[in-house]
Amino acid sequence: MESSGVSIRPYQEQDWASVWAIIRPVFRAGETYAYAPDISEQEANSAWIEKPQITFVAYGGDSEILGTYYLKPNQPTLGAHVCNCGYIVAEQARGRGVASMMCAHSQGEAVARGYRAMQYNLVVATNEIAVQLWKKHGFEIIGTLPKSFRHARLGYVDAHVMYKLLV
Amino acid sequence: MESSGVSIRPYQEQDWASVWAIIRPVFRAGETYAYAPDISEQEANSAWIEKPQITFVAYGGDSEILGTYYLKPNQPTLGAHVCNCGYIVAEQARGRGVASMMCAHSQGEAVARGYRAMQYNLVVATNEIAVQLWKKHGFEIIGTLPKSFRHARLGYVDAHVMYKLLV
Repeated sequence: MESSGVSIRPYQEQDWASVWAIIRPVFRAGETYAYAPDISEQEANSAWIEKPQITFVAYGGDSEILGTYYLKPNQPTLGAHVCNCGYIVAEQARGRGVASMMCAHSQGEAVARGYRAMQYNLVVATNEIAVQLWKKHGFEIIGTLPKSFRHARLGYVDAHVMYKLLV
Repeated sequence: MESSGVSIRPYQEQDWASVWAIIRPVFRAGETYAYAPDISEQEANSAWIEKPQITFVAYGGDSEILGTYYLKPNQPTLGAHVCNCGYIVAEQARGRGVASMMCAHSQGEAVARGYRAMQYNLVVATNEIAVQLWKKHGFEIIGTLPKSFRHARLGYVDAHVMYKLLV
């Protein structure tokens, strides 16, 4: 998948240093993902690489990694036709449509793998750019969980459950 | 906690045979929990006993185990102030208010352990008795996930996200 010089491919082991450099500041900030802000590199690898079914990276013309996303079933067997993804774009690559590309790519991957829907479990309501972007990609706010996210700067804030039927 | 001769205490290892006998037919039916209907005893033990923070059993005057529930954080660190519970009542004990007692008990336990809210992620919409019971206990349907549960008899059905602020 390519657009504006950005491509997407599956994660490979040698990508870890670049991926960790991208996801670390986002986890450290504690504003969008529920992982511990002081998460260790090993725990982050487990969460982003090992536990998901597959992880992808977005890269530019010079092969520099610009973003990453994971894809996994959201529930066990009888709920495993609904997948879950998480996306992170490198700070220096924001505003280039990388998140949008990854979201579109993930939907194609999900359908190819037999998933019938995609669910985001905890979209922090203060992360308005993400909420708008997922809406643009056809996701609906199914509901809002009051004070379900402990934002590192703002304290307890609401988070949305977002969902899209893919087939 | 006691009411109508039913009490609740923490699960102990020697309870496993009784607990498995209660949860097995519910998992096998594939109508309310997402676990594989052919889940192995070991996988069930992992899901119901090992992974949760704590599991409880409800028992009658003769010490017979009538029901069980687990309690665990629903998300990692920045979402870990919201807990998740699952409840199952023995077939022969239905209609005695055991689920209601366990729901009330779990809310007390959750508050005592510092949780601020409780979330049910996938309440199968066709399980109307459960939906009504959780509503009676103050849970709200935050939203409904279309076709998110593959019901063993009915195929793809909707499921609710239910939530209650505890503090």
